Amino acid sequence: MTIAGEMLIGATALRGTDKPIRAIEAATGQPMEPAFGGGTPADVDRACALAWAAFDTYRETTPEARAAFLEACAQAILDIGDELITRAMAESGLPRPRLEGERGRTVGQLRLFAQEVRDGTWISARIDPALPQRAPLPRPDLRMRLIPLGPVAVFGASNFPLAFSVGGGDTASALAAGCPVVVKAHSAHPGTSELVGRAIQSAVKSCGLPEGVFSMLFGSGQVVGQGLVADPRIKAVGFTGSRAGGTALMKTAAARPEPIPVYAEMSSINPVFLMPKAMASRAAAIGKGFVGSLTLGAGQFCTNPGLVLAVEGPELDTFLASATEALGGAPAQTMLTPGILSAYQTGVSHLAGNNRVRKVASGQIATASTQGEAALFETTAAHFMDDPALAEEVFGAASLVIRCPDVETMLRVAEGLEGQLTATIQMEEGDLEMARLLLPVLERRVGRILVNGYPTGVEVSHAMVHGGPFPSTADGRSTSVGSLAIARFLRPVCYQDMPEALLPAALRDGNPMGLWRRIDGVLGKE
Amino acid sequence: MTIAGEMLIGATALRGTDKPIRAIEAATGQPMEPAFGGGTPADVDRACALAWAAFDTYRETTPEARAAFLEACAQAILDIGDELITRAMAESGLPRPRLEGERGRTVGQLRLFAQEVRDGTWISARIDPALPQRAPLPRPDLRMRLIPLGPVAVFGASNFPLAFSVGGGDTASALAAGCPVVVKAHSAHPGTSELVGRAIQSAVKSCGLPEGVFSMLFGSGQVVGQGLVADPRIKAVGFTGSRAGGTALMKTAAARPEPIPVYAEMSSINPVFLMPKAMASRAAAIGKGFVGSLTLGAGQFCTNPGLVLAVEGPELDTFLASATEALGGAPAQTMLTPGILSAYQTGVSHLAGNNRVRKVASGQIATASTQGEAALFETTAAHFMDDPALAEEVFGAASLVIRCPDVETMLRVAEGLEGQLTATIQMEEGDLEMARLLLPVLERRVGRILVNGYPTGVEVSHAMVHGGPFPSTADGRSTSVGSLAIARFLRPVCYQDMPEALLPAALRDGNPMGLWRRIDGVLGKE
Repeated sequence: MTIAGEMLIGATALRGTDKPIRAIEAATGQPMEPAFGGGTPADVDRACALAWAAFDTYRETTPEARAAFLEACAQAILDIGDELITRAMAESGLPRPRLEGERGRTVGQLRLFAQEVRDGTWISARIDPALPQRAPLPRPDLRMRLIPLGPVAVFGASNFPLAFSVGGGDTASALAAGCPVVVKAHSAHPGTSELVGRAIQSAVKSCGLPEGVFSMLFGSGQVVGQGLVADPRIKAVGFTGSRAGGTALMKTAAARPEPIPVYAEMSSINPVFLMPKAMASRAAAIGKGFVGSLTLGAGQFCTNPGLVLAVEGPELDTFLASATEALGGAPAQTMLTPGILSAYQTGVSHLAGNNRVRKVASGQIATASTQGEAALFETTAAHFMDDPALAEEVFGAASLVIRCPDVETMLRVAEGLEGQLTATIQMEEGDLEMARLLLPVLERRVGRILVNGYPTGVEVSHAMVHGGPFPSTADGRSTSVGSLAIARFLRPVCYQDMPEALLPAALRDGNPMGLWRRIDGVLGKE
Repeated sequence: MTIAGEMLIGATALRGTDKPIRAIEAATGQPMEPAFGGGTPADVDRACALAWAAFDTYRETTPEARAAFLEACAQAILDIGDELITRAMAESGLPRPRLEGERGRTVGQLRLFAQEVRDGTWISARIDPALPQRAPLPRPDLRMRLIPLGPVAVFGASNFPLAFSVGGGDTASALAAGCPVVVKAHSAHPGTSELVGRAIQSAVKSCGLPEGVFSMLFGSGQVVGQGLVADPRIKAVGFTGSRAGGTALMKTAAARPEPIPVYAEMSSINPVFLMPKAMASRAAAIGKGFVGSLTLGAGQFCTNPGLVLAVEGPELDTFLASATEALGGAPAQTMLTPGILSAYQTGVSHLAGNNRVRKVASGQIATASTQGEAALFETTAAHFMDDPALAEEVFGAASLVIRCPDVETMLRVAEGLEGQLTATIQMEEGDLEMARLLLPVLERRVGRILVNGYPTGVEVSHAMVHGGPFPSTADGRSTSVGSLAIARFLRPVCYQDMPEALLPAALRDGNPMGLWRRIDGVLGKE
């Protein structure tokens, strides 16, 4: 396949005429070929017009047709072959096994949504049959289904060039819901984006769908990004990135004449709670496991464990000694972009320069200017609670250990935390009582609670929640990973006394689609 | 029961110390006894603190306990007896049969949510069992449920002193979800509010629940209303009222350090499409039925049919003649408040003063200064599309007929409409083809589509949608009526590798609650 530096607007490919962007080879910091022309307001307009024109047709495709399309997208991504991996390696600095794994995840995600579309439970069909004899007033026939919101603007993420980008979870779930998608490709990996974009474009064509089902633009956040979110034909936004970026989109979306939902997955420090009995029995092992999670992918995960809470004592010293040793064996790693590396270094130096924070350990020294070094810091619970800056995410392999005088203080620190994607409890049987006190505190501010694991590694499945209260996401009522992500792009419509000939298949008598439906509130397949 | 002019904060009743409000007897315009002292910021703080303190306990009550509480609320409201009806009649000017019916609706709504809580489908339990042998990485055990968002601020509505107020749909659905509720009572019916509030307060006590599960404050929108929405312990808002009021709350909620969802049901003109064959066969009957819906409850319904679209011709003349005759028999009716009457009169005089609008007919002349007269206007499609002010809601029994040269123009007008709660199609078999073109246009901008009915009358059931895209509501992904309203106050939480002893009952092995759950995506009762 070609990387031509072109945007994809419906069935066409064209070179943007706005200021071009170039990928930077992550390992060397050198600009790569080709240049990718940026999109203009006219390109945004054209992509949105096509998406809007495609919407009514696309949203009424049969589950089978839509599932086949998602599977065709998956196959087309695989068919790109190794060029996708090598380009993504160059643009992101991520190693081959990670990107091969991420491709598998991306393809698996599209296939999971295909399966979910076929399953149809997400349609949430409900029927309240008419009660013509009811007194004092008869009840009309009422039927409800969920329908898609409309075209969705998807923003590619820097840290997952495949799984959270052009053909990633937001795109897959929006397409599954029946929403056309306009992607703003992330400027850090335009070549990878073009390859995946062309794969999806070819799937749209081979499946005979309206061209506007998918478009992909390059360009600046101001022109293309804000332009998409402000466009009246865009009805929802999917975003993975920084808190500043996400909240800017939230503001734009809320200020529209018609405000729209923004699903921005933004920032999280993913606290890890080390309970006393667990520490007594395996502090060293926890320290080692923790560092493995901390340094994975140069720490460039939204679920990176950026905060550790433990009770003072010899067990904590053991944990820190073990973590220090493990970090000593952790090589510096190429980071995704110069901007991310620089923000990471700034974050680390703020911690290092804070006189209430002590640096505990470092990873190995960088051997290139594009690499980030892992770092572990500590402070006391009192200092942490006193200084909100210490709870800010440092995106990369840095973490802060909070020394607590007792478990009650751990609970107090937990109560003071902002919304998070995850929280982790390391515990043993003997910690149950304390964990029971901690659990409701975490449920109120976290999307996923793990026991005796580490937060990195987000399964793509039905029961996954990759979400959480603000500011971990813009909308804590949702998940951006797993089959429930489809629900973000749906809304209910009720049909009252509608003749059979006009009713959507999902709601017709005799259940022609074989859906789970609630009839008078009772779930069944009738 | 006593109407003491007191607010209810947890288990206590107290007189507010801020500027008092008084009910105005709707029929006479005279102030009523007693005075209701307004709440202060300290009262808001106390109510929110109690709600927050109650949240963890209340949200983990068993379905049976929570359902029994909702049923106790229903019974306690019935137990108030006729005093509730007479007070509501005086405060709202609504007639006895309407208020008795509304009480039935309110009680039925609480009971429907009790049934829904017991059913448990809303918990949306999902389990993806561990796959320890999976290569290259094992899958952890993942379990998801929906949990309540937290304390909810509910704003009583002027036009439904019972069904959309203190013990109305927002309160019922929030309590059903497991959220404590703090109500800001509507100043138009404080006595009715206090009676219902005391009923709920007594149910909290008799069910042995934490007192903070329910509080109710009087006072100004600025101090109490905005204060509640800005309070960090409030996690969602339910509101029924004006577009100005709703959007003000949306702004406050979006500007919080932690933005929260606002479910504001705001404004809708509920277009009615009169299709040619239906008009050919029964224009006169449609005119009469339409006026019945238009004048019901002095037109003070969010679903009032404020816009009628029809094709020019003799059938339309027949419709208008019939509507004119019916309106001539429609007495002027007492309106809810002096403010609503005055806004209605302003809206009507704007229409009357617009030189592109013609007054077609009026209801009977008012016999008291507190009454509103029904009014029917007409204009052309071209004028309507040219003047956005003509699409603004006039809350009351006024409607505007749009003369369209053809059905295609009706479609074009429909495409230009803002989000609506409802749309209605009057049609016959021969209109099917045209209706098929209209349907997708309506689906995109409406929450409920009716055929051959009238939009007033909103069934409380499982398949109802009382919602719609902005500005009909603040959040078109939801309904404020029917059992799905519970979903507004829930968010998903995932538990990874959590020991059985810590798992919530809904997610335990063996399905002790007997819930519908998705195991590896497959719905069943295992």
